[in-house]
Amino acid sequence: MSLESKLEQLGLTLPEAPKPVAAYIPAVTSGKQVIVSGQLPMQNGELISTGKIPSQVSIEDAQAAARQCVLNALAVLKAELQGDLSRLVRVVRIGAFVQSDDDFYGQPQVANGASEFLLELLGDAGRHARAAVGVNALPLNASVEVEFTFEAD
Amino acid sequence: MSLESKLEQLGLTLPEAPKPVAAYIPAVTSGKQVIVSGQLPMQNGELISTGKIPSQVSIEDAQAAARQCVLNALAVLKAELQGDLSRLVRVVRIGAFVQSDDDFYGQPQVANGASEFLLELLGDAGRHARAAVGVNALPLNASVEVEFTFEAD
Amino acid sequence: MSLESKLEQLGLTLPEAPKPVAAYIPAVTSGKQVIVSGQLPMQNGELISTGKIPSQVSIEDAQAAARQCVLNALAVLKAELQGDLSRLVRVVRIGAFVQSDDDFYGQPQVANGASEFLLELLGDAGRHARAAVGVNALPLNASVEVEFTFEAD
Repeated sequence: MSLESKLEQLGLTLPEAPKPVAAYIPAVTSGKQVIVSGQLPMQNGELISTGKIPSQVSIEDAQAAARQCVLNALAVLKAELQGDLSRLVRVVRIGAFVQSDDDFYGQPQVANGASEFLLELLGDAGRHARAAVGVNALPLNASVEVEFTFEAD
Repeated sequence: MSLESKLEQLGLTLPEAPKPVAAYIPAVTSGKQVIVSGQLPMQNGELISTGKIPSQVSIEDAQAAARQCVLNALAVLKAELQGDLSRLVRVVRIGAFVQSDDDFYGQPQVANGASEFLLELLGDAGRHARAAVGVNALPLNASVEVEFTFEAD
Repeated sequence: MSLESKLEQLGLTLPEAPKPVAAYIPAVTSGKQVIVSGQLPMQNGELISTGKIPSQVSIEDAQAAARQCVLNALAVLKAELQGDLSRLVRVVRIGAFVQSDDDFYGQPQVANGASEFLLELLGDAGRHARAAVGVNALPLNASVEVEFTFEAD
């Protein structure tokens, strides 16, 4: 099943590719790799999750935020591939930055919001390498930022 | 106009490629990609900006620090390309780490110091993907660290 | 001398490739690059170093933790290369995340635990680009996390 059929089955549609919040571009293609800029959990132009985990944001909400980063990245990827997501070969790597209280060590759980969603959407092609770390602050007070490297034909 | 003519026009010259502060090398070429190690805002062997933003460093000073990281990266790139910057095809990605107070969320503004300078120097070839995040501490107390992936012929 | 002979000479053996702690995979091959997920200082299924540097973990212990991350990454790489480490061409990049007190700026020293070990094991092929940064929290309270990009034939 195609990625877009799968999204439809789940009742999801890709958002408009989010505009970067600054002087850079959403994606760059280099050889077979498509590098997508760090995505924030934006939905309809607003962050769905802000603050530190877990004092200000629950793990569950942060996982939902990570899912939103995936949707936004796929929207960016689709635009970069001239609308043809069937050119996607696989996900190579994600880097997940989790805005964390100083004593929160559950970054893998939060990043799983993104990782498990990629598996659900893409099957084997969604399997990826990952670095997940905590940070004390993120752009616009987002609870999560995720960057992506894809491989495309 | 070549990158070096552009620098000259701006009254800038590339510094000596900064020495890494530890047991690694400034750049590695892998296929068409040149990966440049995380650059600190060193100028003439000293950091021009140290501390957390904004309690110890203003956003403007941090932007200038990010510009300095770009100059240092271009110096490293030039050395890696045997002195021939015309081999640079484009900037692929930058990763910007901003030493942030726990309640500072303006990392994109700071990273724009680097992003806008790359656009100014390189035009379309300077457009890049980016991840910008806050961190609580950086090497030598630098206010900013920026790593780079370039594509070269 | 081969990497495995060198390890043997040092009295070291590669561990079993550590299982990722979450829904992702240990390594992905993309073109000639092998991207290895962020490694924690696991040994026999337990972290050998937890907490912030230097209030809870000494620099020396954190360097040993970074060495362990290298061993774990080489174990992952060996599995990804179907057991044949002679296919390794070089180390391209490491990203070192150091769990740091807010006023600790010795991340390069800690990351050298990984960098110097790679040089010792691999000689020129171990020379790499690097980004080393401090963070306020890491998965499972690990003191260090290191991700790797290798080039292989």
